[in-house]
Amino acid sequence: MIRDFQKEDRDSIESMIQRIDNFTQEEKLIALELIDDKVLNGEKSHYTIYVYIKDLKLIGYYCIGLRPLTDGVYDIYWIVTDPEFRKEGAGKSLLEHAENFVKERDGRWILAETSSTDKYVATQKFYLRNKYSIVSEIKDFYKLNDDLMVFGKYITK
Amino acid sequence: MIRDFQKEDRDSIESMIQRIDNFTQEEKLIALELIDDKVLNGEKSHYTIYVYIKDLKLIGYYCIGLRPLTDGVYDIYWIVTDPEFRKEGAGKSLLEHAENFVKERDGRWILAETSSTDKYVATQKFYLRNKYSIVSEIKDFYKLNDDLMVFGKYITK
Repeated sequence: MIRDFQKEDRDSIESMIQRIDNFTQEEKLIALELIDDKVLNGEKSHYTIYVYIKDLKLIGYYCIGLRPLTDGVYDIYWIVTDPEFRKEGAGKSLLEHAENFVKERDGRWILAETSSTDKYVATQKFYLRNKYSIVSEIKDFYKLNDDLMVFGKYITK
Repeated sequence: MIRDFQKEDRDSIESMIQRIDNFTQEEKLIALELIDDKVLNGEKSHYTIYVYIKDLKLIGYYCIGLRPLTDGVYDIYWIVTDPEFRKEGAGKSLLEHAENFVKERDGRWILAETSSTDKYVATQKFYLRNKYSIVSEIKDFYKLNDDLMVFGKYITK
């Protein structure tokens, strides 16, 4: 089941993020900063967060927001699933939920940035499998030999 | 002369921004939001701002920041010159100052986003003239028929 984020979800999300080996310490901090922005600012936050609940346990979430100055470009800042529940399809369900979120708001683009490194091959394949294309690449972005890849899907009603 | 932004510059910047016909009301608001973030948070702000002063009058500024999770990608969020002083070369001086700012911090990329529309042709030419290349383009970004263009320069020491 996917539902709106509630403040009480914060600690479950933190403990999930801490268990993700793929994330660097800095990535964990930034992911949590957005959660805390939402806890602090609620409706006024730039971010919208939805969580995936299975058997009363939080096993995934995504965080999305409208790009300022655009009339319908949404960035998926984070889409995270619990490594212990990788086969549940929670990632795919969250992504489809995000696309519907964008559709309902008359959005046109949904974008997700990721890294070109081997660590993120599963993420890259996840977007390609879900019919995203690579809309932008910038060499040596995150660091030397670690390029930016922007995956995007143009949303049509 | 280019110097650090001081809180007292806020109103000069606002009155300059208000006189830029090219900016929509929304663009003006967002440009000012970043200035106000700097006024409010000072050193803790994500943004660094430098202003161009000629004969005691503020005639331009730029606002720059490090992209989170990168080890050296700097975004020029705004680079603005007073329309009454277009021929002064303040834009070019501010851009070169920004590049030095990045160089001093061992940055590798300096990026600036702009729109593909006719209104921004002068801006596009400004970056091309200053040896930036188009590193990314996304169709129908700001709105239908208004694409994102990302100009970038790879900084080498």
